[in-house]
Amino acid sequence: MQTSAQPPADATTARLLITCADQPGIISAVSTFLYHHGANITDFDQHASDPRGGRFFLRMEFQTPGLDCSWDALKNNFQHSVASHYGMEWQLTLAAQKKRMAILVSRHDHALMELLWRTMRGDLPAVIPMVISNHDDLRGEVERFGIPYHHIGVSADNKAEAEEQALSLLEGQVDLIVLARYMQILSPEFVARYPHQIINIHHSFLPAFIGANPYQQAWERGVKLIGATSHYVTDELDQGPIIEQNVARVSHRNNAEDLKALGQDVERQVLLRAVRWHLEDRVIVDGNKTVVFIK
Amino acid sequence: MQTSAQPPADATTARLLITCADQPGIISAVSTFLYHHGANITDFDQHASDPRGGRFFLRMEFQTPGLDCSWDALKNNFQHSVASHYGMEWQLTLAAQKKRMAILVSRHDHALMELLWRTMRGDLPAVIPMVISNHDDLRGEVERFGIPYHHIGVSADNKAEAEEQALSLLEGQVDLIVLARYMQILSPEFVARYPHQIINIHHSFLPAFIGANPYQQAWERGVKLIGATSHYVTDELDQGPIIEQNVARVSHRNNAEDLKALGQDVERQVLLRAVRWHLEDRVIVDGNKTVVFIK
Amino acid sequence: MQTSAQPPADATTARLLITCADQPGIISAVSTFLYHHGANITDFDQHASDPRGGRFFLRMEFQTPGLDCSWDALKNNFQHSVASHYGMEWQLTLAAQKKRMAILVSRHDHALMELLWRTMRGDLPAVIPMVISNHDDLRGEVERFGIPYHHIGVSADNKAEAEEQALSLLEGQVDLIVLARYMQILSPEFVARYPHQIINIHHSFLPAFIGANPYQQAWERGVKLIGATSHYVTDELDQGPIIEQNVARVSHRNNAEDLKALGQDVERQVLLRAVRWHLEDRVIVDGNKTVVFIK
Amino acid sequence: MQTSAQPPADATTARLLITCADQPGIISAVSTFLYHHGANITDFDQHASDPRGGRFFLRMEFQTPGLDCSWDALKNNFQHSVASHYGMEWQLTLAAQKKRMAILVSRHDHALMELLWRTMRGDLPAVIPMVISNHDDLRGEVERFGIPYHHIGVSADNKAEAEEQALSLLEGQVDLIVLARYMQILSPEFVARYPHQIINIHHSFLPAFIGANPYQQAWERGVKLIGATSHYVTDELDQGPIIEQNVARVSHRNNAEDLKALGQDVERQVLLRAVRWHLEDRVIVDGNKTVVFIK
Repeated sequence: MQTSAQPPADATTARLLITCADQPGIISAVSTFLYHHGANITDFDQHASDPRGGRFFLRMEFQTPGLDCSWDALKNNFQHSVASHYGMEWQLTLAAQKKRMAILVSRHDHALMELLWRTMRGDLPAVIPMVISNHDDLRGEVERFGIPYHHIGVSADNKAEAEEQALSLLEGQVDLIVLARYMQILSPEFVARYPHQIINIHHSFLPAFIGANPYQQAWERGVKLIGATSHYVTDELDQGPIIEQNVARVSHRNNAEDLKALGQDVERQVLLRAVRWHLEDRVIVDGNKTVVFIK
Repeated sequence: MQTSAQPPADATTARLLITCADQPGIISAVSTFLYHHGANITDFDQHASDPRGGRFFLRMEFQTPGLDCSWDALKNNFQHSVASHYGMEWQLTLAAQKKRMAILVSRHDHALMELLWRTMRGDLPAVIPMVISNHDDLRGEVERFGIPYHHIGVSADNKAEAEEQALSLLEGQVDLIVLARYMQILSPEFVARYPHQIINIHHSFLPAFIGANPYQQAWERGVKLIGATSHYVTDELDQGPIIEQNVARVSHRNNAEDLKALGQDVERQVLLRAVRWHLEDRVIVDGNKTVVFIK
Repeated sequence: MQTSAQPPADATTARLLITCADQPGIISAVSTFLYHHGANITDFDQHASDPRGGRFFLRMEFQTPGLDCSWDALKNNFQHSVASHYGMEWQLTLAAQKKRMAILVSRHDHALMELLWRTMRGDLPAVIPMVISNHDDLRGEVERFGIPYHHIGVSADNKAEAEEQALSLLEGQVDLIVLARYMQILSPEFVARYPHQIINIHHSFLPAFIGANPYQQAWERGVKLIGATSHYVTDELDQGPIIEQNVARVSHRNNAEDLKALGQDVERQVLLRAVRWHLEDRVIVDGNKTVVFIK
Repeated sequence: MQTSAQPPADATTARLLITCADQPGIISAVSTFLYHHGANITDFDQHASDPRGGRFFLRMEFQTPGLDCSWDALKNNFQHSVASHYGMEWQLTLAAQKKRMAILVSRHDHALMELLWRTMRGDLPAVIPMVISNHDDLRGEVERFGIPYHHIGVSADNKAEAEEQALSLLEGQVDLIVLARYMQILSPEFVARYPHQIINIHHSFLPAFIGANPYQQAWERGVKLIGATSHYVTDELDQGPIIEQNVARVSHRNNAEDLKALGQDVERQVLLRAVRWHLEDRVIVDGNKTVVFIK
């Protein structure tokens, strides 16, 4: 009906992500391999963490119609001809194969609605197999989009069981889990099951105002900008690799409620970008940081 | 359910807007008048277009519980005791009395959805009596919110009749008309019926790229920022008083479709602000400019 | 030669700053007092920290040519007729009376040069009686502008004496002290002599990265924005009332040196704004926050 | 003394810029060529204007210590082995070889001072062989930096002679000419001598407010953002390929003088970026647009 906010990825686009120790000849080896197999490189972005012996990161897009072998053969050949030689961690994906994204949420609907609305109108290249919440409040808003809504109450007593229940729902169904203002802390066991596959939105400019009630904290400190941070979830609360951050200006005229309202718009925008970049295979984790190859 | 993006205006808040030729004593006269009538001023913002004899603009908020007379009596007294003496144009409104906002739209739904969604969840202090469109495409999205949707087809032949039909639907029903990407040019007669009560969103940073296909124009010119402009509609196309503008950064990597997608987010944000400020009585027109008393 | 970045304040402009407990009638009392004395109000900005019984803050500019009494008489009358009744803290200043600003600096010259250059070309309404540094490195750059440069070495042994020496140089000579990247911590005694008259620039987005080497800290944390904060100095390190903050975007391509370089431009901009607002009597301290009446 | 705003380019860094019709195998050919000659690629950025048959643009940085041949031999070999085959336009430069930048200016010193100051402290990788002005006003500020200042008066009568005089001063002395608010229009003959080597700063957000007095135009139109644009100079006034743009927020409180003052800071920032990117070989002209490979 209307132009999507991001044109659908070309049905013939593939993406290659590579990380390895930096050394001469990598670009030549990779690009020559693809050229010889009939892949036409259309986008190429590279990063070296240190010109003198750091890590090497590469993202490329190429077109598949001219490939001289099957997709599986290409992967096998790449591993044997190139990747093993350089000790590469790598990933080959097809843009047409949308990632499956589960959303966990508590009671605030702004971040959830942004993701649902964008995905439904084709702005965000994902499918949403389910929404899980520790409250039942948002069921109506979610089911209206035809998406299954699972209410799993969490209390001090049943935390472990509740996580088990969520994990069994998610098992084999998702490529990415988004915490769209999910106010429960996930256990290390849960996190370990989805390494660098859980994205959270924290409602402050991290590392400022870690923990609870960041808008109240920000208001009390009298900051002139408030922010939001989207990051991968790790075992340490609010300490995982940051994918994206942004801020909005506030003044003495704004009370803590205003900060919350203004901040929610920043949260939506920041989470949307981080999720989009992950879905488009633009993010590579580098220790506790991220390399983000932005369009 | 969740915190609204803007707390509901206090049920006892009144607003006074004033414009007149600048002269000594205005602030003293107005504030003393209100004080003597038991009004407690809680916000006060003023602007003089020129320290030496320009126009005077004032917006204030005050609390009504202590008023020593009725709302109508206050208005009458103000006109006789203060306004007539200084030749003021003025307006007294109650924050609790939400303005009625009709939305005109063609086929793009992004700006419309932003306004619907915000209004429905209480973020925007308005009621929406109707949506009018020259296409039937968005009926489902609108009616889902319980809002009447009127499809009035417009062609070269029936333009005048179509406007008549719209005007009769609007007659007495609206305080504000928002063109949320309505791709028809309104006639001077239509515009004259709603002076400074029609807000448009133009998808460029005016005065750059006036007229049709601004994103295509912007892409062809190779600009590094794209923008959107919200303005009151006047007889001259895209020339009315500007209420708000914003921009987003683009690069050589973005094609015209990308510009459109990125721009739509700017349009939503810019239109939302302009509409909010109008609804909160924060905008005063000054010739072909605006004075905007932002929180 | 060229247009200054801020037109010189009108020779006849006065400014009034007021703080007191909020209560009805203040605006009426103040504006009526000024009107009766022939003062013409040209700018008026007000803030109430809470509509229901908080603090009241007011800044106004008025023109003095029509005053019916002397400047001193105006002050006396204001105290007796208005201020004492409402328990006001207040301050009346003349825009033409430029504040005297001493600058303390260590070895980084970027913030210092911004202040010197702006002041010398008339952009910043100040006079600079002296620059004090714990190093001798920047003497040439400062003396070129005809400004006295005092080198007071600071070591673990002579910290108290060094501060004494600085205090005696400053005694009676300054209205404002700017720490333009001064890498020594001032003692509580020093700070107590200049309450809300010492402005610091901290090279991070406070409260993130308090203390030493914030750019290194920011790089290690992998933030996507770096910032700077200008605040009044209090006894607690980096904890004083914030006047202004801003940020700049960084990416994985930037190393710690880049962050430092990009951050220095943010520091200059943020410190310049904070100092300008202080010099123009636009800042009122409210507990550990600031009210800033921005133009 | 202090950290420069951009660390000096490594003494062993070389840069390769390439443009040609897009076709398979380019990246493989170029990277393999460099690998075989012992060049170690440390930065690689690429752009294809259209995935299906557009133009191909590439910028890479590589380290030269391991080269197996002389710099001249590398150039010759590259032309014969790679560039001629693909019909490439290309350029190989050494980061250590700073570009020679002449500055033309009229009376406003803000943009000039930014360039002088940054270059002198090592922030900008350039040498400045001369400043040319049609006025004598800024001689002192320039000569203080030890840079030759040439005053060439321009009138309606002597325009051609004045340009001749400037051209003979510039002949063989410069790689780049920056118009840092030079208020004379250069003739097509002058421009033709330095294709894509003349950078201008225009004090508006082009294409809005082309021509004279853009700040006055912007104030009269009542825009809410003002901007500046840096572009390569072509025969058409203010129509050349845009390198960088930015904006600053303004309000009804700002008069035309304020816009000028606020805009000058944007001009400095925008021109600085455009010049830096040109000096670092980050800009490739693509018709009337630019491809800018930003760090």
